[in-house]
Amino acid sequence: MSAPIEFFFDFSSPYGYLASTRIEVIAAKYDRQVDWKPILLGAVFKVSGAGPLTEVPLKGPYSRHDMARFTRLMQVPFAWPVVFPFSTIAACRAFYFVQETDPAAAVTLAKALYRAGLGEGGDIAAPEAVIVIARTIGLDADKLAAGIQDPRIKQRLKEITDDAISREIFGSPFIIVDGEPFWGADRLDQVDRWLATGGW
Amino acid sequence: MSAPIEFFFDFSSPYGYLASTRIEVIAAKYDRQVDWKPILLGAVFKVSGAGPLTEVPLKGPYSRHDMARFTRLMQVPFAWPVVFPFSTIAACRAFYFVQETDPAAAVTLAKALYRAGLGEGGDIAAPEAVIVIARTIGLDADKLAAGIQDPRIKQRLKEITDDAISREIFGSPFIIVDGEPFWGADRLDQVDRWLATGGW
Repeated sequence: MSAPIEFFFDFSSPYGYLASTRIEVIAAKYDRQVDWKPILLGAVFKVSGAGPLTEVPLKGPYSRHDMARFTRLMQVPFAWPVVFPFSTIAACRAFYFVQETDPAAAVTLAKALYRAGLGEGGDIAAPEAVIVIARTIGLDADKLAAGIQDPRIKQRLKEITDDAISREIFGSPFIIVDGEPFWGADRLDQVDRWLATGGW
Repeated sequence: MSAPIEFFFDFSSPYGYLASTRIEVIAAKYDRQVDWKPILLGAVFKVSGAGPLTEVPLKGPYSRHDMARFTRLMQVPFAWPVVFPFSTIAACRAFYFVQETDPAAAVTLAKALYRAGLGEGGDIAAPEAVIVIARTIGLDADKLAAGIQDPRIKQRLKEITDDAISREIFGSPFIIVDGEPFWGADRLDQVDRWLATGGW
């Protein structure tokens, strides 16, 4: 069986959110699994020297326009959170805590967090906000509250983000198919083609 | 009749080159003209604070990989020039000089310059190199040599680049359809859709 498709993303990334709505459909066409890997893009930017796209001179206003336009084209619900970009530490830690015991529930949680944050423009930065969302999909609030603070989970998030940096993953979404890197929601058609053909 | 599609590009931009091979086909489907506008991306970067994509930490190696992969997918000939990015001042001035008397020939020249520079990996930075290419498509070498040095042409290029900057055009290719901005060769399908539907 082929290795899973690695799907790196940041919970505060509209392009990552867009990709999250399509990646599994594409993977399923080729009987492939998706390994969801939320990372802290802020930590990546400290190394790359880059910053949030929406805050780059000239490019910032365009990118906001493009993100909203792209979601409309894909008919994906989208709304800007009041604070953007926002902290995703709690969201990431919740994901990895849930993943330890129930990987499928972690993916369901990731989708619920994206939907609440970027689909509906809600504030999902605080642990309390993440826990409210987790409860809506049937997760245990008390366990999750403890899990988000667990040093082992904190370390796990740090390791995955460091691993991403060491592999030169510099943005969101960043998708690796059999060693081949694809950056951006606008490369999903190429990901599809790569899976179909094994390269070109 | 509708206004032309504005096509801003830099002769040293692989993504601009890619777009140059498709933009007219897309425009023709909707009976639209293309206004080719080569600009000096280096002057834009001085204002935006950005730099050549291939020189950005982490993003640089990926972008080189992506550019070559994208051209293979589109089956467009591509080779890296030894010096990259390269000066495009002579190419731009030649374009605007030829455009004054023969707009169609200017577009033919632009395509020949892209093909020689990024299609074949040739050095097209010097005025002499641009003139050699111009001669292959039947243009008068002596007139062009003088035209490239004409202060009026130098001013024209400066004005068009300044106009692009003032309109927040920060990259290549940058395509404006009825006031709607699209950045990147990966937005050509959206340009096509916008022309078909008038927006979404």
